[in-house]
Amino acid sequence: MDSENPVCIGKGQPFIDGMSKASGEAMYTDDMVLPRMLIGKLLGSPYPHAKVENIDFGKALSLNGVKAVVTGRDLGGKTYGTFASRRDESGLAVKARYVGDPVAAVAAVDEETALEALDLIKVDYEVLPAVFDPEEAMEEGAPLIHDGYERNIVAYRKFDFGDVDAGFLHSDYVREDCFFSQAVCHGALEPRSVIAVYELSGKLTIWTSTQAPYKIRRCLSEVLGISQSKIRVVKPYVGGGFGGKVELNSLHVAASLLAMRTRRPVKISLTREEEMLLTRIRAPMRIYVKTGVRKDGVILAQSVDCLADSGAYASTSIMLMYNAGLTCLIPYRIKNFKYEGRMVYTNKPVTGPMRGHGANQPRFAVESQLDMIAEELSMDPAELRLRNATQAGDTSVSGLVFNSCELSKAIKESIRHAGWHKKRGNKQSNRGIGIACGGFVSGARGSGHTASGTFIQVNEEGGVVVLTGSSDIGQGSKTVMAQIVAEELGVPISDVTVLSGDTETTPIDPGTFSSRVTFYAGNATLIAAREIRSKLADIAATLMEANVEDIVFRDEKVFVRGSPEHYVSFRELAKKAEGLGHGRLIIGHGQWAPDNTQFPDRKTQYGNVSGAYSFAAQVAEVEVDRETGQVKILNFTVGDDCGRVINRLGVEGQAEGSVAMGLGQALMEHIIFGENGKIMNPSLLDYKIPTALDCIDTRLIEVGSPDPVGPYGAKEIGEGLLISTVPAICNAIYDAVGIRIKELPVTPEKILKELEKGKE
Amino acid sequence: MDSENPVCIGKGQPFIDGMSKASGEAMYTDDMVLPRMLIGKLLGSPYPHAKVENIDFGKALSLNGVKAVVTGRDLGGKTYGTFASRRDESGLAVKARYVGDPVAAVAAVDEETALEALDLIKVDYEVLPAVFDPEEAMEEGAPLIHDGYERNIVAYRKFDFGDVDAGFLHSDYVREDCFFSQAVCHGALEPRSVIAVYELSGKLTIWTSTQAPYKIRRCLSEVLGISQSKIRVVKPYVGGGFGGKVELNSLHVAASLLAMRTRRPVKISLTREEEMLLTRIRAPMRIYVKTGVRKDGVILAQSVDCLADSGAYASTSIMLMYNAGLTCLIPYRIKNFKYEGRMVYTNKPVTGPMRGHGANQPRFAVESQLDMIAEELSMDPAELRLRNATQAGDTSVSGLVFNSCELSKAIKESIRHAGWHKKRGNKQSNRGIGIACGGFVSGARGSGHTASGTFIQVNEEGGVVVLTGSSDIGQGSKTVMAQIVAEELGVPISDVTVLSGDTETTPIDPGTFSSRVTFYAGNATLIAAREIRSKLADIAATLMEANVEDIVFRDEKVFVRGSPEHYVSFRELAKKAEGLGHGRLIIGHGQWAPDNTQFPDRKTQYGNVSGAYSFAAQVAEVEVDRETGQVKILNFTVGDDCGRVINRLGVEGQAEGSVAMGLGQALMEHIIFGENGKIMNPSLLDYKIPTALDCIDTRLIEVGSPDPVGPYGAKEIGEGLLISTVPAICNAIYDAVGIRIKELPVTPEKILKELEKGKE
Repeated sequence: MDSENPVCIGKGQPFIDGMSKASGEAMYTDDMVLPRMLIGKLLGSPYPHAKVENIDFGKALSLNGVKAVVTGRDLGGKTYGTFASRRDESGLAVKARYVGDPVAAVAAVDEETALEALDLIKVDYEVLPAVFDPEEAMEEGAPLIHDGYERNIVAYRKFDFGDVDAGFLHSDYVREDCFFSQAVCHGALEPRSVIAVYELSGKLTIWTSTQAPYKIRRCLSEVLGISQSKIRVVKPYVGGGFGGKVELNSLHVAASLLAMRTRRPVKISLTREEEMLLTRIRAPMRIYVKTGVRKDGVILAQSVDCLADSGAYASTSIMLMYNAGLTCLIPYRIKNFKYEGRMVYTNKPVTGPMRGHGANQPRFAVESQLDMIAEELSMDPAELRLRNATQAGDTSVSGLVFNSCELSKAIKESIRHAGWHKKRGNKQSNRGIGIACGGFVSGARGSGHTASGTFIQVNEEGGVVVLTGSSDIGQGSKTVMAQIVAEELGVPISDVTVLSGDTETTPIDPGTFSSRVTFYAGNATLIAAREIRSKLADIAATLMEANVEDIVFRDEKVFVRGSPEHYVSFRELAKKAEGLGHGRLIIGHGQWAPDNTQFPDRKTQYGNVSGAYSFAAQVAEVEVDRETGQVKILNFTVGDDCGRVINRLGVEGQAEGSVAMGLGQALMEHIIFGENGKIMNPSLLDYKIPTALDCIDTRLIEVGSPDPVGPYGAKEIGEGLLISTVPAICNAIYDAVGIRIKELPVTPEKILKELEKGKE
Repeated sequence: MDSENPVCIGKGQPFIDGMSKASGEAMYTDDMVLPRMLIGKLLGSPYPHAKVENIDFGKALSLNGVKAVVTGRDLGGKTYGTFASRRDESGLAVKARYVGDPVAAVAAVDEETALEALDLIKVDYEVLPAVFDPEEAMEEGAPLIHDGYERNIVAYRKFDFGDVDAGFLHSDYVREDCFFSQAVCHGALEPRSVIAVYELSGKLTIWTSTQAPYKIRRCLSEVLGISQSKIRVVKPYVGGGFGGKVELNSLHVAASLLAMRTRRPVKISLTREEEMLLTRIRAPMRIYVKTGVRKDGVILAQSVDCLADSGAYASTSIMLMYNAGLTCLIPYRIKNFKYEGRMVYTNKPVTGPMRGHGANQPRFAVESQLDMIAEELSMDPAELRLRNATQAGDTSVSGLVFNSCELSKAIKESIRHAGWHKKRGNKQSNRGIGIACGGFVSGARGSGHTASGTFIQVNEEGGVVVLTGSSDIGQGSKTVMAQIVAEELGVPISDVTVLSGDTETTPIDPGTFSSRVTFYAGNATLIAAREIRSKLADIAATLMEANVEDIVFRDEKVFVRGSPEHYVSFRELAKKAEGLGHGRLIIGHGQWAPDNTQFPDRKTQYGNVSGAYSFAAQVAEVEVDRETGQVKILNFTVGDDCGRVINRLGVEGQAEGSVAMGLGQALMEHIIFGENGKIMNPSLLDYKIPTALDCIDTRLIEVGSPDPVGPYGAKEIGEGLLISTVPAICNAIYDAVGIRIKELPVTPEKILKELEKGKE
């Protein structure tokens, strides 16, 4: 790429599948129809904790149109888990652990019949005592939800760097605060769906809306006891995931069992209610933060303690609780840092990965507290952050290596554009402005396979097909891959086709999570594209009697640098290449994972877990209605360092989407648990998610400089922005009306209550 | 591979998709359903030669449920052709050239509505004079069917090697005979079908039963004026092709236009009648052969002149007529050879490639004549062939290089097994035995792209996925690829998945024709598998501290030669390989076309067009009922040289299939043309195709020795066998009752007539 003058890198590229989606052409899993397909439905437990003693489904099975009933027993005790050390789920339970936990499933010729059959299934339960609160679950004598997990603690992470005690001792000011971040749901527009087909040869094929086809394959293999070689997972269009669609869920297991039993395709599509009840939600977390600073604002020590609610199963608990601590060390230079995080089983719906994956809750706490510290020090909160901001070249006390970092620039630019100084501090008006910062990984080192792979082929007309294992879930990863190829080969994007997410045809890829896709898959694609370019350049160099290094690919032409008028078109070159030696394939492949990362040390947790880190500073301007307590967000200014921007439109979309999602968690979304841990508001009527009318003007300022490791210097943007949105809003509210809410969401009721208190 | 002890090469391997097909699970194009799919139907011309003046389809369009009508005019004059120099078709004609030639198509919500709509379309034709016989078509003043083809000659091939005049002069015996080979159809069990989908982005996707997805793509690109990059062709299961499904046909063009017009998926499935009328049939051909021999039986000169009927369009005429001449020089050492072949347009259904592709008709003629020569020389016909048989190491007078050849062994073994000497010569009994020989190419050098490509990936559980562009149409090519991979990597076939025939995911491949698949795609797969093996062997060598050359892959284990007990399982090795350096993809790719071939010289036609040649000798034993004229085939003995056998079951299937197809052409199949060149018997009721009851005991004797160029030494078998089946039967009939029929098929009527004559 010509860095001074790229063809499409850095430009605004409409998503290559945008038209398909907007027109309704795009086929999602639920749109698919296969001959002889049956419809499946799940039956959930009415109890939060109960052993399934017996299931009598004779009546259901004899209902006309019902083809099979399967139960937890059909799994023969096999379990799966996203992490090998926490294989605690089976999809269909023999012991139900939350209200709604699926225990059986039915396949019938249509939905009505399937629903009718559910009513005819009689389950005998041995009801067990249940527990709904993490603190209570840890107490002596609390019901044990999973065997082998003492005190129901499913994950415990701890690190201790430097000397926090000494740090606090030397601090001029120390404060301790406790915050609470509530359960919210992903709210992806597309509820999930699966179609399973099982062939006589023993081959199982799954179409499902997923972020990680290879994880689905592996987990299905574990719980069904079928070799991965006999399972194919295909990801059609996905209508959003946000982390919720990374894992295997009950519907996949049930549909597979039903397909194996009936030998017919089986489709299960979740209702919105099931989507909220049966899949994953963001972990409610209590965060205790103690921070000590010098009087000039420099942080000398920080201690963070998190207690999170796992719900009924482990999901990604061990990683989530690790992230909660890890990410505290990204934005600021903290030399003495201690972290303890516990995630605890309760008999409630399962919590799991959601955009930010454990970083959001502590960030809300730390960023809120920083403002309280700033006030105490009579210091500008932005200035306080500048004094602690990570710089390029730093290594954190935990071993994170920051090759690139423009956080300071993000802070300065965002406050400048937002008119910070003008707008701050007037607590008698109803308007306020607040800032928060954060940083995130671009993929994190896990155990086992983490590389991404890409295959590319060029056809005789110069068309390019890219096979990537990475999953586009609406974030536009396919478009990024296409841009990289278009840049390297000088072909128009319209000549590039990207196929993604089919375990049988695309190279293995861990999945779309941890903000790894542009970073890993982008680099893999770059390598593959450069292999193609190199092969074609060799041929061009021979044809043009020039040096290979002087061959330029641009605007569909291939020429010697300096002589663009003597060109051969890319198409002609492709055709020539194929003709040489009677037909050569123009194919390239690439695979990539960063060389500069390590799996964190088992004991100390020391290690550089990611190849690069993103940084952001967000400034929110709000207006609070003192009569109603309603908060209106006037605008948002986002200073973002994601290295080099590949797709300006994509990056703007992430910024707007983060702000929308963040304002939801900050102000209105709340999963309410009732008796028995049941979700009381599992519908978009009662669960208040932002709509198009709530979205606000978001100004994005890109401040990043190219990272040495990322493709063209790019880093992540999908998750890092969200984590500072909530505290920016909360800090702005404080600036507006002097109210500090430490328990999300910040509802009108809470604000009014505080305002009342203030009057007293 | 351990040649002494291969794991699966040479064994009988049931087809990996056999169970799917036999159980009915396999999805063919016509089984597919897409949401909102429309059904399309074609409207054919009632005249054999007529310009379309106007098409009034207003009434059809306003019929409820009709969504679009398209006509030849919608193509704007664009045409396509399998060969660039003969782009004479458009799929929907603006000038109809045979009865049934499609001129319009309809898409409606169901079949009934579509058929009703056809009746409402009013076409005004300007009827033109027509011609139905090739000789008449070449005459002065005959109607010109395509502009620019003087005397309606669409293909003229000629070669002249050595000095035939001198050869004849020196011959002790010269005879001239004229033969006629009739039109027959492919008779594949699956009539063809297509589903077309057109997206807003301009992308066209086609599912169709085809032998050559990449040819379909290219030709569609030509006739629709859409870049190949925007066309995806997918081949689902195919129920037989035999050469008939290599090319683009009207249904593909019509379905594409209808999908583009309606923006809905459109399916067109041909009826059996349409399959026989509208696609391709085997070219009727008159073959004149003049052969001169020495009295010891050695052929001194041969002159062959073929006149073939092209039907209304060119199809593969230029190649077919080239093959007709070329293949005469494969089985026998003929030093002086002259060939002239003409293919002529007529206003009849189109003739095109069919198993043997122009070799069958001359072979029937030459092998029949050889027996007549043998009789004249009082020589055993098998002996006559032995005296002329090509030997390994020969180069034909036209430049064909025979690296491997076991024809003599094939002759000797087949006559030995058949009890030749015992059974020959008794013309008073009703039984007779006859022999015929032949040879064929294993893929032929064409212009442009001819290589095959393969991608292979290994997953972390040791499962292997092979992506091959080659098309399995029931001949078992996927199974051959799987065997090669299983052999190289020592994995069970059940762990190998083969995906084929999707222009977007599988590497480009010319297609399944010219008997090229095992040879080209097999070698490409071998290269890819060896790349995988090499990568894994490197890792194993390091692990086991051994030399890479000593690493053995067998029975799912990997070990050092001589120490099989110290092994690592293939799965463990795959997992280790992925874990090394945090996740490496185990991928390999290969592409291959033979190095030892040339495109024949434009002037002289000299050149080695194929990497290897197969040979066969077939012996038929028949019994003729003198009362009814019926011929019963008692048994068939096939001596075959296909180099190394990869799949014994596949090869036996080809032998049995060839014999069945050959006996059909020899004895019963005949496309009857009526007035106006219309096919009178376009149904399996009236067109007599062999059934399961007609198939007879076929003994296959493999005599091949490994070819230096083919994968593991394998050569073709799909077409070479068929070409000698018909003459073997005819020669057996002559041996039985002394009757020589020179015009196929040899019906009971013809036999009885000759027997009558004999009595006079």
